[in-house]
Amino acid sequence: MVKKAVCVVSGGMDSALSMKIAQNSGYEVIGVHFNYRQLTEAKELECFRDLMTKLGVNNKYEVDLPFFSDIGASALTDSSISVPTSGLEDGVPVTYVPFRNGIFLSIAASIAEKEKAEAIFIGVVQEDSSGYPDCTEEYILKMQDAINQGTKFETKISIEMPLVHLSKAQIVKQSLEQGVPLELTWSCYKNSIKACGVCDSCRLRLGGFKQAKSIDPIEYEG
Amino acid sequence: MVKKAVCVVSGGMDSALSMKIAQNSGYEVIGVHFNYRQLTEAKELECFRDLMTKLGVNNKYEVDLPFFSDIGASALTDSSISVPTSGLEDGVPVTYVPFRNGIFLSIAASIAEKEKAEAIFIGVVQEDSSGYPDCTEEYILKMQDAINQGTKFETKISIEMPLVHLSKAQIVKQSLEQGVPLELTWSCYKNSIKACGVCDSCRLRLGGFKQAKSIDPIEYEG
Repeated sequence: MVKKAVCVVSGGMDSALSMKIAQNSGYEVIGVHFNYRQLTEAKELECFRDLMTKLGVNNKYEVDLPFFSDIGASALTDSSISVPTSGLEDGVPVTYVPFRNGIFLSIAASIAEKEKAEAIFIGVVQEDSSGYPDCTEEYILKMQDAINQGTKFETKISIEMPLVHLSKAQIVKQSLEQGVPLELTWSCYKNSIKACGVCDSCRLRLGGFKQAKSIDPIEYEG
Repeated sequence: MVKKAVCVVSGGMDSALSMKIAQNSGYEVIGVHFNYRQLTEAKELECFRDLMTKLGVNNKYEVDLPFFSDIGASALTDSSISVPTSGLEDGVPVTYVPFRNGIFLSIAASIAEKEKAEAIFIGVVQEDSSGYPDCTEEYILKMQDAINQGTKFETKISIEMPLVHLSKAQIVKQSLEQGVPLELTWSCYKNSIKACGVCDSCRLRLGGFKQAKSIDPIEYEG
């Protein structure tokens, strides 16, 4: 029987690699994307669709979560909070969306149980990242425990996080090796035609390409 | 400082009691209700609003989760699956919605972190219930662990489940003692003017009233 994996795909580089690793490991991929009223909602959805088409994934879920604008409390979901552009600082940044990955993983688990998938792939990165509490290995393992306890006895879901201990440079290298169409990904937190190059997400991505001695195929402002 | 609790309120008897216990214990209540394309969506929302008004709760979130109809896989969210009416059977019933409470608790956690609430109240019942895996104490404790690991370091959320080991008869008695307006609650799985009296949820509720030697104030068919 074919083994199936639900892959959480934002349209960014990390989740695209995570999904490609699932595919290259022999999983039939079910792509799940979340529209959560983030600034770059339209751009990310476009990247998700392009990635699914390019990588031949037909089974996909585009999940609308309009309530995130009622919660707000993050620069990504509340337009009154500015996206920082002067470099990563200590602590949890204002781009943190309260327990976002918990919500994403719960919905992915629901879909996995329905689809009888045995794994969920998520592209969280722990060290070389923004310091979000819902992107750590400790958290993901506890969530996996909770999911297996709170679903049917016969449902056994493994949460795979193949990028969790990679540096951004290693992510760039692996993306090239595994055949991720990086030109179709979008990491920038800002809603502009070209990536801004100065938000935390752009800085991390560009730093990764620089250390990997590689050129980012997407366009940047300025 | 006032202590705040996010209360998950469906509009049914159990969650109404759970919320009233929070209120009577001195918590300022934040009511959270989910519209998840369940058969009785409109009826439950009406009960939620009436309960909030009656109990003086002003801070409330009505969360729309339209994607549940894409997941389906339950008699409550897929109109092609019939609601059973011939009595509770062994195993997980077809009214189980895959990992529903996991999704509800994750969203409640996001709201709790934003609102700086220290507790989430949920009206899960373990023994005298339908046998849903996401209604057990073991599951809720693991979810609490995951939530505290996946949110900010300073966020500490306790998940309270005051009904988890109560029988339905005890729930009816406590509801009367704590002052729950039972006439404003709705437990039936079917979308009809009066409660059907024969679905699992009606049977459990009516059994509770009978054992408690009390009369259910809501109307039933037939």
